[in-house]
Amino acid sequence: MMEEPETRVQRYLYQYIPLSAAMGVQVRAARLEHVRLAAPLAPNVNHTETVFGGSAAALATLSAWTLLHLRLEDAGLDARLVIQRSRMEYEKPIPGDFEALCDFADEPVWERFRTTLARRGRARLTLSARLIHMSNRVASFEGEFVALS
Amino acid sequence: MMEEPETRVQRYLYQYIPLSAAMGVQVRAARLEHVRLAAPLAPNVNHTETVFGGSAAALATLSAWTLLHLRLEDAGLDARLVIQRSRMEYEKPIPGDFEALCDFADEPVWERFRTTLARRGRARLTLSARLIHMSNRVASFEGEFVALS
Repeated sequence: MMEEPETRVQRYLYQYIPLSAAMGVQVRAARLEHVRLAAPLAPNVNHTETVFGGSAAALATLSAWTLLHLRLEDAGLDARLVIQRSRMEYEKPIPGDFEALCDFADEPVWERFRTTLARRGRARLTLSARLIHMSNRVASFEGEFVALS
Repeated sequence: MMEEPETRVQRYLYQYIPLSAAMGVQVRAARLEHVRLAAPLAPNVNHTETVFGGSAAALATLSAWTLLHLRLEDAGLDARLVIQRSRMEYEKPIPGDFEALCDFADEPVWERFRTTLARRGRARLTLSARLIHMSNRVASFEGEFVALS
């Protein structure tokens, strides 16, 4: 029986990015067009009983990174993936468990990224993610990633 | 004997922002013009044996937040401090222990912030921080904070 991608990705994150385990990250969806990560409040709380901004930024970063990692893997590309810059908008305090969602389905952009990576050994892609608490958007993230082959 | 501010701030961080303990944050300097936080690579590592971007963003956020927290406390202001937006530039991979430095000594800006907070119950301030590895700058952070009294 094939292992679920969520189980596999979660094990990968816990093994190679230990902060994800300290944050209690749960991989809810790990697909090429959609990644959803959940985290509980307790290990990510701040002095006002809401989510610490650094935890919020870390979960958003992780969701976008995971989506790109899955796509590179799916395409059989052995590239090193690094984040180059990011922006966070903290729209509302997050008083409980939260999720990071990253969607990406722009196949023409992806094809261009792959072609550039193959030709130049380096390509960049910008991904957006959002944080959700109780079905409401509470923060927005944008990250520019670079792949190096 | 008075307790060192670094000891007091570190205890505060570990108690109220548990991710700081998971990250192994050490408070090296906790002054009104200068905050310096250190973190080891091991709990903050990623799949390439360098610092996970989320950890880098979290340490930078924490350094700026700590400086503002110290200033509000020193001014006897009981305000709620939240981050509204932030930007990170990841300039170089960080292959080892790292530090976040936040400097702020613009007293006219601080006075304006205090006056606005007193008058309107709300004021905002932008702080910069930088990440250092082996004496080199490896990332830059800018965060906009809002205090609500």
